[in-house]
This record gives sequence, C-alpha cells and structure tokens, in this order.
Amino acid sequence: MKLRDLYRDSLSLLTDFYQLTMACGYWKEGLKDSEAVYHLHYRKNPFKGGFAVACGLESVIEFLDDFHFDESDLDYLSNLKDFDGNPYFPGEFLQYLGDMKFECDVDAIPEGTVVFPQESLLRVKGPIIQCQLLESPLLNLVNFPTLIATKGARVSMAAKGDKVLEFGLRRAQGIDGAVTASRSSYIGGCHGTSNVLAGKMFGIPVSGTHAHSWITAFDEELESFYAFARAMPGNTIFLVDTFDTIEGVKKAIEVGKWLKENGRKFYGIRLDSGDLAYLSIESRKLLDNAGFEETKIVASNELDETVISDLKKQGAQIAVWGVGTNLATAKDQPALDGIYKLSAVKHKGKDWQHKLKLSEQMIKISNPGILQVRRFSNEYGNIADVIYDELLPPPEQWTVVDPLDPTRQKTLPDSAESQDLLVPIFQKGKLCYRSPPIDEMREKTIKGLKKFHSGIKRFLNPHQYVVGLERNLYQIKVKIIKEIREKVNQ
Amino acid sequence: MKLRDLYRDSLSLLTDFYQLTMACGYWKEGLKDSEAVYHLHYRKNPFKGGFAVACGLESVIEFLDDFHFDESDLDYLSNLKDFDGNPYFPGEFLQYLGDMKFECDVDAIPEGTVVFPQESLLRVKGPIIQCQLLESPLLNLVNFPTLIATKGARVSMAAKGDKVLEFGLRRAQGIDGAVTASRSSYIGGCHGTSNVLAGKMFGIPVSGTHAHSWITAFDEELESFYAFARAMPGNTIFLVDTFDTIEGVKKAIEVGKWLKENGRKFYGIRLDSGDLAYLSIESRKLLDNAGFEETKIVASNELDETVISDLKKQGAQIAVWGVGTNLATAKDQPALDGIYKLSAVKHKGKDWQHKLKLSEQMIKISNPGILQVRRFSNEYGNIADVIYDELLPPPEQWTVVDPLDPTRQKTLPDSAESQDLLVPIFQKGKLCYRSPPIDEMREKTIKGLKKFHSGIKRFLNPHQYVVGLERNLYQIKVKIIKEIREKVNQ
Repeated sequence: MKLRDLYRDSLSLLTDFYQLTMACGYWKEGLKDSEAVYHLHYRKNPFKGGFAVACGLESVIEFLDDFHFDESDLDYLSNLKDFDGNPYFPGEFLQYLGDMKFECDVDAIPEGTVVFPQESLLRVKGPIIQCQLLESPLLNLVNFPTLIATKGARVSMAAKGDKVLEFGLRRAQGIDGAVTASRSSYIGGCHGTSNVLAGKMFGIPVSGTHAHSWITAFDEELESFYAFARAMPGNTIFLVDTFDTIEGVKKAIEVGKWLKENGRKFYGIRLDSGDLAYLSIESRKLLDNAGFEETKIVASNELDETVISDLKKQGAQIAVWGVGTNLATAKDQPALDGIYKLSAVKHKGKDWQHKLKLSEQMIKISNPGILQVRRFSNEYGNIADVIYDELLPPPEQWTVVDPLDPTRQKTLPDSAESQDLLVPIFQKGKLCYRSPPIDEMREKTIKGLKKFHSGIKRFLNPHQYVVGLERNLYQIKVKIIKEIREKVNQ
Repeated sequence: MKLRDLYRDSLSLLTDFYQLTMACGYWKEGLKDSEAVYHLHYRKNPFKGGFAVACGLESVIEFLDDFHFDESDLDYLSNLKDFDGNPYFPGEFLQYLGDMKFECDVDAIPEGTVVFPQESLLRVKGPIIQCQLLESPLLNLVNFPTLIATKGARVSMAAKGDKVLEFGLRRAQGIDGAVTASRSSYIGGCHGTSNVLAGKMFGIPVSGTHAHSWITAFDEELESFYAFARAMPGNTIFLVDTFDTIEGVKKAIEVGKWLKENGRKFYGIRLDSGDLAYLSIESRKLLDNAGFEETKIVASNELDETVISDLKKQGAQIAVWGVGTNLATAKDQPALDGIYKLSAVKHKGKDWQHKLKLSEQMIKISNPGILQVRRFSNEYGNIADVIYDELLPPPEQWTVVDPLDPTRQKTLPDSAESQDLLVPIFQKGKLCYRSPPIDEMREKTIKGLKKFHSGIKRFLNPHQYVVGLERNLYQIKVKIIKEIREKVNQ
C-alpha cells in the first residue's frame, strides 16, 4: 500500500463501485437533474447502550470541500470492463464526472452532540448523482468516529472523573484507524492519548513513560528505574510488573526516596498485568506507608468500561486508566450500523416525492421527507427528540410518536424549550460552517451528557430516551407503507 | 482531522509517546550505541483458528524507507512539557532525532505466508533507540493486515471456490482501515472488492451494480430494473429484495427475458436480506424454470465464514458472496494480539546478551536471541516450524520442543526439506527486497494453505500445527527464566 498516495490525489474513488454504476445509470436515464435527499442515521445504540456521541464531521467537511474526480481517477475508471468485456462508463459520462462541482446542501449534527437511533446525523440534498456517490465515504467517515466517541464517553463515565488515556495505536485498524480513534475518544471525554501523531495533528495531550523493554534492556530492574529517574525526572512513573509486581513497587519506592532526597517528585507507578484490584490496593498501602500519598497508580491491560466499573466497585486504588484495544477498536462492537437512505426525490419540473425503503421489520423502514431533529427540554434537562419533516407545515402542537409502538405518543408542553440539532454545513456546495476547537467539542459531550437522565447512561439495560416522529410525519410514513404494500400484493 | 496532512510530512510521530521518552532515556544514559534485536510476533491464532496469514509488509517497507523526523515533528516535541512543567526533551536530543538515519537490519516473513503463534513476523536489529521507536508503528502496520488476510482466507475457504467480494468500506475503521482491509482480504484469497480506491491503488478487481436507493428513486421496481438494464447492459445483476424478494425475482426474470430477446445476458440477482438459504433455493428454481440456468445468485447481509459454511450445508444456491463489516473489521475479533519484544542486547564493546520478558504464564514469556523460523516439509506437505537462534551454532539434529509442554518434542528426519521463513528486507537501513505483485501474494496464500493438513484449517477446534523452539534455544530460555526467578526471589 502506498501510504503517501492514499491522500495525495482526490479521494473521490473512496466509494463502493455500485455508486458509480448507479451514477452512470441516473446519467444515462436522464435523471441527472433530479434532486434527492438522503439521510445518514444509525438504527441501534452501540454497546447495548442508551446513546451515541456524534463525531466525524470535520473529516466529512474536508472530504466534501475537495470533492472532485481527477485525471487519474477518470483514467482508472475508463479502463474498467463489465461482464461483456465492454467499458462500464462512456467517455461522455467520465467527462461529466470530471467537470462535476460539488453543489449539495449538507446539514449535520455537530460533533460532541449526544444522539439517538433514527436521528439524521447528516442530511444531503442536491443532484441525485452527487448524493448517491457520497453514500459510502460519508458512512465511512461518520460510522467509526461516532462509534469511538461513544466508547470514549462510556469509558470516561466509568472512570468517574479519573483520568482516561487512550493507548490503542498498536492494535488499531490502520493508521487513521488509530489517529481517528485518538481524536474521537478525546471528543467523547477521554483526557489524552499515547499516539504522538494524533497529539501533533489535533492538539490532544499526549503522555507515556516507559515499557517493559526499558526494564529488560538493563541488567537489573532497580538500575533501570534509577536510569529512568535520572533521564526523565519530571515524568517519574515506573512500570512495576516486569518480574514481580510487589517487588517492583518496593524498588520504585526506593527510587522514589532518592528522588525526594534530591528535591524531585515520584509521580507514579504503572500496573500492566495481574489482578489490578488486589495489586493496586497493596501498592497503595506500600506507597502510603512510605509517605508517597500523592504518588498515583496508573493501570492498563485490556480495560474497558465494564472492567473499570468493576474495579472501582472492588475498591481498586487506580487514579489513571490507560485503555487500549478495547477503546480504539471498540472491540465488543467494532462497527456502528449507520446507514444512508433516500428519503425524497424531486424529478425535473415535478414536486418533491416522499421515499422510503420497506422492510418486514419496522425498525428497518427508513423515514421519508426532508428531516430535521428538534430536541425539547425543560429546566431539569432534555425530555424528547422529535424527527420532523420540513416539507410539511410546522405543527401547531408537537406530538411525538414512537414508530415501533404508535400507542406510545407524547404531546410536548408549550413551555418546553427546543432546538433544531441539524445545522447548515454546506449551502449549494459552499462551506458555511466552521468546526469549533476540539476542546469545545469535548466539553459539548461532557456537558451534553449531564442534561440527560442518568438512566440513559446506564451500561446495563439503559432507559430509552424518547425519540420519535412528529405526528404528521408518522401519518405520512404509514400512508406510504400501506400504498407500497398494497402495490406489492396486487 | 486533516486527512491530507496525515501522510504529508513524516509519519515518524506515529508512535506511542513512551517510545520517545525511552529513546531520550537511552540517549541520556549513554546507550545510544547499544544494539538491540526486537521481534514482532503474535501469541494466539485469531478467530480461535489454526493459523494466520502474514500481511502488511509493503506498508512497513514504505514506512521504514522514509523514516525521519522533520522540522514540524521536532518543533511539536520541543513544546511538550512534563509534570514538572519542563520540556521533556533537550534540544540536543531533538537534534539527534532530526539527524537520525534509519540503519537497522530488518527481516520479515513475506506477505501471504501462512504463519503461527510465536513466529517472528518481523525482526528488527540495530541501534536500540531506533528499534524502540519502531515498536508502535510496526505493530500498527502488521497487526491489522495480518488479521484481515487471515479472515479473508477463512471466508474464502468457507466459500469453497465460490467468488467472495469484500464490501466493508462503509463500516470499516477509517479510510485506510477500509483500503487496507480490501488489500488484505484479497491477499487472503478473496476475489475482489467494492472499494474503488482500493481497486485503483492495488489493482484489485472491483464490482457492484446498484443499491436499494436505485430502486426507490423510481416509481416502480420493474421500471428501475429496466432502467438499469438499459444503462448497464453488461452488468445486469438486479437487487431483488427492496419490497418482496420473490416478487422481485419475478420482475428481474421479466427484464431478463427482455434482455435475452435483445441478445444481452441476464447475469444475476442479489439477495440482501431475509432467509438466504430459502430465498436462494426458491430464486434458483424460478430462474431455472425460466431458462436462466446461467444467471447467478449473489448474496450479502452480515455474512462471515460461519454463516457461509452453514448456508452451504443448507444447500443455499449462492454463487457469489458479498462480505462486508464482518470481514473488513474482523468483527468477532477486531484486533490481533501482536507484540514486539526485546530479545537481545549488545552494549558497546560487549557481547550479545539474551533478553526476555518474564510472566507468570509461559505463553507470555518472550523468546530470547536473534530468531529465525525454519519450516520443515516432506512430500505430503509441511510437518513442523522450528524457531531457532542465530546466535547459537546450528544444531546437528533438529529437535523441536513445545515450550508450553516440553514433554512434547519431535526430532525432524534428515530427509525433511526445510526453508527459512524470514528474509532480509533492509540491511543497515538500505532496502534490499522488492514486494511481488499482489496477485502473487494471493497465490502464495492459496497454495501455501494447501500444504497444511486440513485439520489446522478447520473452524471448530482446529488441530495445532507443530511449532516450537529448537532444543538448544529452549534450554537457554529455561536457563534465563530460572536465573531471573532466582534473582527475584532473593
């Protein structure tokens, strides 16, 4: 793989091949001037949780702002042959791609916003060909960051204010798998990363001290601790489990005393194996008895939100949590089920038509219209999110219907405050939004989560926050479903 | 995230911060002229399987061939402050990094080789500082590709010669998560991808026809099929499950007849939901009865090697398998447990010293020495892999010992053929290897797997191929472990 070539030219071929054959089909069938609306949403909260944290918009913006096909793309496409052995794409269509200027309207929910299933994280409106080509890259650029920001939020909540550091580079899925995981977990609420490149790129705090190989490079563990203390006197956290953890702690304390005598600080020890509850409690005692009450215990080794919660319940004396693979790859669920569905079409000279994708399962039937999400709140926090259709007149009274169980309806009080979550990012292809600094996004997540009932933040069987369709939208959806089913059964 | 900046300058900061603090420590402690040997290996076969497929070397080569710190890297590092608020790195050390030229020897097992736990996929020998800095990026660049090549091999084996296409872009972990998954699964034995960028970059076959949104963009399913047949007459595979699968197949057949009348071919249908066994069998009957025996059934929807095997057992009539998220993220185990361990050190003016990392579990104790892997075979196939130490004189007779159960030993017959798996990639920092074309790597996997007993390729409780330490190496390892344990217990 040529790493440097990956991002050198255009990224417009970062798409599934069928987007291009469909684009060519629309073009050939005279639909190139048809307009469409697509929505990107996910169906189920990841990790059996009660929420997700939107993330990835900055990459989306960068991708769209530079969306174009260059010569090498067109050259590659011109050489592809179909099953008959003929070129897939006529030269005139490739010319059309080459001349294409991005001209869609894009609305999005900003990064760091707490979101729920069915809510449009992105809405793309414009020429159907452009909207279609964007399906695969937009999903790629939103699914993974949103997954990891959510995981980062969960791990941070489990740590209850302790520092959480992301350590996943070595087992992450590719280079930007690692870098994106560092960024997303920080936006989700983590405090830093071990990944220096991510630190450089995004201004995320980086940290780290030494590995087992530092210890084994010396003849004696004690010698290696002294050496590290001399070399890095402002970064004195010793990894104590290379040979025997408790013996390692004793040696670290010996070096800690030497540091103290020399007016330096003994900042911490790190545990990377064994029974972290037991070892941290025993280590804490040894440290405290030696007068090192301020010296912190850092722990790593296959941690995630469940293990951290459990260690906390057991009284583990850990102040800093290093979370690697389980965070950076979201090991228990390494993919968000985000999808991108056509919800309205406007053929040339005609009105907007509502569109949906049918399924035998209601949860898989997409929502029609040009959708927006309105979040209602009162003085205690958020009370409901309502998905509504901008093609319909605004309702006099806001009633939210659960499409999976329409007997569940809730009319929102007039006194409730509300805010639309999707904000304009591109208008007719022109960027009209500027991402806030990453620390603001992280703050947004942390503050945003506080506005929801603790039940939705629970790890086990969380409460379901009220999200549904505005009543008029629900009625249109049902009508369309019935019409399609009748047609199929004819 | 600035996609374009990611690969623009140097990638040398793609490392864990502690590699830099250790590097600085070695430098300050006068160890910068010490030489070291590190090995990258994994501990357990992924997916509870019996083997893995080595992958990722081409990226490793590109990374190492351009390994350097540029001004922006040094500038970033110079501004980082430790817990005392002082700079971590003295200017002189940063200068040293800036002047650093890569000068390691690197040996590797080529991509597409079937490999096993404990075997060194990469061996890095050179200045300890350089070896140390490379730990995190090398792991990142080898773990994920090897994981996915292995998954690709498993999925391909399950398909028993049917075509397997990788469809994972939309839920892959980042852009190069997607692109690397396409490349790695192809090397593992898959036949192509939907990812056009991966097709362009690596020359992998790409394919695809249309999605549900093509259907819903039209007023009628039948109309959409006709439109696609007109637009893409050499790519006539119709997605039939948008509204009702069986009705969809009937409409596809109607369009197929029209194609036939016009001298064109009806290449296939695609199923993307529902009971794929039942629906493919019923669809096959409908197609055959209409005279379309050659028309293929493509299936997708949360497939993996287990589902494919099971569908095959049920008699599913599927000829082409589209495998997405479960392949591209290796959903059931999204990370390979590869590690990178110091195995020997040579301090200035001294001899090589064997090194290992101790653990309470034998499987976690690394192997000391400058290791090579020799694969023995006879006329029926491969019989054993022996890890041996180039610091020791070559044995007169090759005996392999299982370090986890040393009562299991096997002396290899003199008649056995053998081959060393690690080949030179860099000598003193100079590239001396050229990667073969990707199709050769893929062939290597397919042919290589044939040389192993079918038992190791089984999905459930596979047979363990014989891999162990050459007897003299085993004895040295035991001696060192005893010495360390005695020292700890003093």
